[in-house]
Order: sequence, then structure tokens, then C-alpha cells
Amino acid sequence: MISVLSTPTRLVTNQVDPLHELEEHLIRNQCAIERWFRCQWQTTPPPFYGSVDLRNAGFKLAPIDTNLFPAGFNNLNPEHEALHITAIQHYLDQYHPSLQRLLLLPENHTRNLYYLENVARLAELLREAGLELRIASWMLEEAHTHELPSGERLLIEPLRRVGARLQVDDFDPQMILLNNDLSGGVPEILQGLEQTLLPPLAAGWQTRRKSQHFAHYRRLAVDFAEVVDIDPWLIDPFFRRCTEINFLQAEGLDCLVTNVDAVIAEIAERYRHYGIDARPFVIVKADAGTYGMGVMTAYSGTELRELNRKARTRMAKSKEGLPVSDVFIQEGVYTFERTPEDFVAEPVVYLLGQQVLGGFYRVHREKGEDESLNAPGAHFEPMAFAEPGINPCRKSAPDAPINRHYAYGVIARLALLAAAREAEDWAKAGR
Amino acid sequence: MISVLSTPTRLVTNQVDPLHELEEHLIRNQCAIERWFRCQWQTTPPPFYGSVDLRNAGFKLAPIDTNLFPAGFNNLNPEHEALHITAIQHYLDQYHPSLQRLLLLPENHTRNLYYLENVARLAELLREAGLELRIASWMLEEAHTHELPSGERLLIEPLRRVGARLQVDDFDPQMILLNNDLSGGVPEILQGLEQTLLPPLAAGWQTRRKSQHFAHYRRLAVDFAEVVDIDPWLIDPFFRRCTEINFLQAEGLDCLVTNVDAVIAEIAERYRHYGIDARPFVIVKADAGTYGMGVMTAYSGTELRELNRKARTRMAKSKEGLPVSDVFIQEGVYTFERTPEDFVAEPVVYLLGQQVLGGFYRVHREKGEDESLNAPGAHFEPMAFAEPGINPCRKSAPDAPINRHYAYGVIARLALLAAAREAEDWAKAGR
Repeated sequence: MISVLSTPTRLVTNQVDPLHELEEHLIRNQCAIERWFRCQWQTTPPPFYGSVDLRNAGFKLAPIDTNLFPAGFNNLNPEHEALHITAIQHYLDQYHPSLQRLLLLPENHTRNLYYLENVARLAELLREAGLELRIASWMLEEAHTHELPSGERLLIEPLRRVGARLQVDDFDPQMILLNNDLSGGVPEILQGLEQTLLPPLAAGWQTRRKSQHFAHYRRLAVDFAEVVDIDPWLIDPFFRRCTEINFLQAEGLDCLVTNVDAVIAEIAERYRHYGIDARPFVIVKADAGTYGMGVMTAYSGTELRELNRKARTRMAKSKEGLPVSDVFIQEGVYTFERTPEDFVAEPVVYLLGQQVLGGFYRVHREKGEDESLNAPGAHFEPMAFAEPGINPCRKSAPDAPINRHYAYGVIARLALLAAAREAEDWAKAGR
Repeated sequence: MISVLSTPTRLVTNQVDPLHELEEHLIRNQCAIERWFRCQWQTTPPPFYGSVDLRNAGFKLAPIDTNLFPAGFNNLNPEHEALHITAIQHYLDQYHPSLQRLLLLPENHTRNLYYLENVARLAELLREAGLELRIASWMLEEAHTHELPSGERLLIEPLRRVGARLQVDDFDPQMILLNNDLSGGVPEILQGLEQTLLPPLAAGWQTRRKSQHFAHYRRLAVDFAEVVDIDPWLIDPFFRRCTEINFLQAEGLDCLVTNVDAVIAEIAERYRHYGIDARPFVIVKADAGTYGMGVMTAYSGTELRELNRKARTRMAKSKEGLPVSDVFIQEGVYTFERTPEDFVAEPVVYLLGQQVLGGFYRVHREKGEDESLNAPGAHFEPMAFAEPGINPCRKSAPDAPINRHYAYGVIARLALLAAAREAEDWAKAGR
């Protein structure tokens, strides 16, 4: 069963004035915002899907990660199912009207039941939207039906390649949907296909870079801030990047120390400007990669120099063993949102094409407000949004759930637009 | 308050086998159907909105009227609001991305509170979707705020023309949305505008013809029937047309008698073919016009010859006094659907762009299953659909509400597509 958060979260900070101002600006400028997005999507088509991790510090609301292989469809509010189905239908209407047969390639770690529930839910929505869908894996020798805790049954079949096409049995799909982030690299079976892949192979973490994403996001945030008349910092985290870092050998740490301190100084200047009484911090993570591995919080550059061997080993490897060499230093954004039970909560917004689908809170019983909550486990609990966030309500307070989730949807769309700009770069580079 | 029909309607006929077969065909062929529609909308863009009156006889499911100025947005299920808002957003994404300022022109009969509730609801949805909207009338000298039974307040302002543009105060809309069917003709103030009108002026009943609509529908029904492998008659009512009829002077009645009998004979042949034990009938109505005026049921041509003066007077005039001269003779389709309280019910499906929004049943406490139910009044009661009808469910019975409403949505889309083809004709004719 999916938990829906019916009692609103609350912000445990008294520094909410700038955010209320931001939310008011977003609500008041809804018409201009919607038109701006519509025009942006005309020139930069959206990715098929995505999820955006947001942090809400009361004084600031910003994306910290944009995932092009979202893996939490099972955590969305089932009451908004019609919205999810029609979002798929509209994407097809607009971008792939003649598509009928789709092949879904999920991650291969088939023992993660939470993940398989996501695949089952995504598959159900795609079928309900009117697509013929099969699900396959290149790691399987024979078909396997998973019995899931929800009661769903999920059939995953072996993938085969015939010439330049992927097939499953006699099913010849027109297009391939990846729900596998290719952290382990692009397997040969996916290379040189004549079928279109959604998203393209370049969206995999072997080529994708957070710094490229947030560079696009920065430019968009500046443009968008002009539309709604705000300081772009209120929606945009500072960042810097260091290359050729080897944590295990302790190489390149000077760059890290310098840049962590530089970002901290930039944050401190903004905190002083807004009279914010909070301690600046940064998040240090791989420039390529996902999954909460190799992520750390730091309050100063010296902390990086003083990492012990255990901490350096943890930072050295990210998911599926990609060695970390390029490091992304991102302004830490506090998450001052808490559930009624007082656990720290971080919103995750789901999108399909240009459409916000709603989202859920990552609720972590053992993490603090300055830590990444993207660490699934026993203390991780998703709580679906009660409101999908597709429109504000001028009659309600700026921080009412309908308005707060609209603000989340706007910022998430801005992040998805940045990902769409990345895709343009990949296309230009012929990837 | 809007009533939602939570207990399904039932079909009071034992002749449901062909319909179950039709519903099964639609459910089984969902993927092909959805793809077919997507490809159709690529070449023929949908109207902004529409509503389709359907009749469900158990053995047959067919549209009997397609309205391009739908007036029952207040009767839709408010639980599906997110779907209604995103349908508008998707229409804008796809067809008018840069639109921000819209002017709505409703009907001028401002004393009909039911109608004004519709305008208020439509306006709210358009604003929630992110449009700046004003509402105006060319019959008003000064702005007037209506206090509606629902508690909503509806401001209608005087329309003014500045050169080739319509304006309200200093509000200069980029586009005009008509919710006025122009039965009284096209007023001068709407002629020769540089702003785009949705739908175009030619959609008004002064130029639009039911026979043209159903001729397009027939061709589409034949194509569609091939996609789902059914007899097109199961979804398409026979029709014929007579011109130069003057009911008051009893002129042209021979044509009516001959064609009514011909349609009855065609129906009788199909009834025999399917072993249907029901009496064929036709509906005689104006080829141009709306509103249940000048509509009659007939079981034979002789009934037309024997109309008394009162009946002929009733047929002679339609809404806003357009004289009836072209007459549309349509196969009567029984509505064998009944509410749990045993009243006759007729489904009306609402659409926005290519998206089904759901719909409602017209429930009439005093009408029979062979009569038009489109006669608002004390005994008229709308009951919103519980399911929006955007997707079938293979796990449910073919006649479960989710599947029945999917079938309604499919047939309604086919009728809207016919209206889109009409619009192509108008565009070619330079109207």
C-alpha cells in the first residue's frame, strides 16, 4: 500500500519569509510561467520522463538532482492515476503518434522488490495508456515472473538482438524505453540500434554529468527569475567541479578544499544578505552517478583534507563501481520540511513529458536536515503527495499544500527543461 | 452540488449481445484504437472542445448529436478536475503555446442560472490551467456580477471593438473562445476580426449542418469499423436529409414521408439481421440547430403527413427563431440505459482537444426511451460519470462502468473527429 501524506508537512524554521515571497511570486505569475514553459517546450522537447529531488529550506527551494530513469512510480498517489495515464497519452500525441509497440528495459538487479514494484506500476500505466508493452532484460536466459508484495505479477523476458533491432520472441517493438541508468556502461546489445531509445544512451551516467545539468539549470534559472522577478539564488544552488580526483590515493584534494571553501563563501554572502541564521554547507558527490553512494556533507574545505581511509573508500566508488574522478561540489540546501511525526522529508517530483505527475516525500527516520535522504533502506519511507501540483489556488494561503506543490512542480519542470537542454547537447555531439 | 452516479446504470433490454461484442472489440483493440486516433489528430487537429450525445440501445451505441459549444461543464465530476485542467494545458502545449490572454464569449440568455454555472466552471478551469481570462457579452452596456446558486460569482463585462480587435477595458486578448452557438446569426461585432476565434464562426448553427457532420461520421465509422473489425452500423445511425421543407405551409412533406419510410426500412433490415425485437423509429429535426426544439419521434412516414397544426408549429421554429427548411431524418436509437431509480438516461461525453473529460447522464423523469432527452426543465437531472473513460480495464467485465465509459469515450472521439473534418471543409471554403 502507498501511504499518502494527508496532513501537510511543516517547515521547522522561522526563516520562511523569502520562500513565502517566492511562492507568492510563482502563484501570482502562474499565467506568465505556464506560457513561458509552453514556449520553452516548443524549442526543446521534454524527455519522456524524469524525477527531480528538491530541497525546501524555507528561505530557498531548489533541485539537487534530476533523474532521467525514475524508479518510484509505485510511490505516486494512485488517486491521480487518470492524470498519469493521460500524461503518457499526451506525450504520445505530441511526439510519437504512431508508436504502438514499446519495449521496457529495467535495471537488472531483480532482487530489489521495491524497484520491481516501480517497474510493474510503470508498465501498468503504459498499458493503460494504450501501448503494447513487453519487458525484457539482457541478463536473462529465460522468462521469469516475479510475484510482488503488492500482489502484482511481473513478467520479464530475455532480450534478443536481430540485426540492428531488439526483439522479445516475435514482438518487434518500434521504440525502447530505458528504465536502466546504464551506470555499468552501455552493453553491446544496445549499441547501434535502428530503434529509437528513450532516453538516449547518452543519458546514462557513464556520459551524463551533473555539472552540465546544473550549468543549463543556472542559465534557465536566470531567465526564469526574470519572468517571475526574483533573485535566481532562491531556486538555484551554487556549484563547482573538480576533475581528476582520486580519493583512495588522496590526489586532487587541493582543488576540492579550495572549491568547497569558495562555495561556502558564496553561500555565506547570500545568507548574510538575507539575514539567514544557518551554517553554510556543501554536498560533495560524483559528477557522474546516482544512488546516494559517494555522497558527503562538508562545512569546510579542511574536512575534505582530513577524511580518514574509510570515508575516502566510501567516496571512491559509486553505483556499479564507476570510479569517481570528477567531483561535483553543490551548495547544501537544508530540508526544513518535516512530517507530522517530525521526520525529515525531501520532496521528489515526477514528470512525464512536460506534465507534472505529482510526487512523494522521501522520509528518513535516521537522517538529519543537512544530509542526502536518497539512501533507501529500513528507515526510508515514501509518502505520496495528496495534491498533484498542476495548478495553484489563489484562494488558499501561499504555503497550503496545493500551492506548495505547484511551486514544487514549477521548479521541477525547470530542472527537467535543463535535462532537455542536455539532450540537445548530446544530439549535437552525435551521441 | 453535482450528483455523481456511483451505482452503475443498467440496460433494460435482453438484446445486449451485439453491444457486449462491440465493447469487447473496443477493449481488446485499445492499442490499435489509440494509435489510430493519434494518427488521425495529426492530420486533423481537434476542435478546442465539444460534447457528444450518445444513445446506448444495448445492441447499438451511437452518437446522435455533436455540440461544439458545450454548456454542461458544471455537470462534470469535480473529482476529475486535474484531468480537466491538464487537458486544457495539453491543448495549449500542442496548438497554441504562446496563448496567454483569452476572452470567453458566452450565450446572452443571462437569466439561465444553470447555463451561467457552466460558464463559471469553464472559466475556473481555464484560469486554473494558467490563462488570463475575461468574460464579455456584446449585449451588455455595463459589467454585471452574477451571484450563482453554487456560491460562485461570475463577472461578465461589456465587449468593445477597437478596429479589427475585440477588447474588454484595457484587456487585449490574443484569442476568442466562443461558448455561444450563434443560432441567431453572426453579429457584426464578430465579423472580420484579426483575433482567432475558437471554434470558427462557421461552427455556429447558421452555417453548420447535421447532415454534413454525420456524412463525415459515416466515413470515419467505416474506417474505424475496419480497425476494430465490426459492422459500422453498430456505431452509426442511418440518416437522410430533405430540403425546402415548410412545416407551417405543409410544403415538402412528400420528401419527408418517402425518406422517413426509407430510413425505417433500412433499420428494419438491420434489426432482422441481428434478430432484434424492437420497433424501428426515426428522429426528425432541423438540419441546423440545437436545443431540443423542433424535434420529433416518428415510426412511419404517414405520421409526418398527419401532423396537426400545433405539431407543425412546434417543428417550424428552432432556437432563436431560425426557420426550419432543411430537415434531418436520423435513425432513432433507443436509450435502454436506466438509473437505479428506473429513469431513462442518455450519456453525454465531454471532450477538450483529443482528450475525453468524462461526462454525465441526462436523466429525464418524464421521457421515454424513444424520445430526445435534451429538454432541460424541472424533470431534467444531470448525473456525473464516476469514471472518466480514458482507459479500459481488461480485468473487469466488458460492461463494468470503466469499460462502458471507455467505449463511450471512443465513440465520442469518433464524433469529435467528424466535427474536426467539418472544420477542414469550412477552412477550405474560406469561412
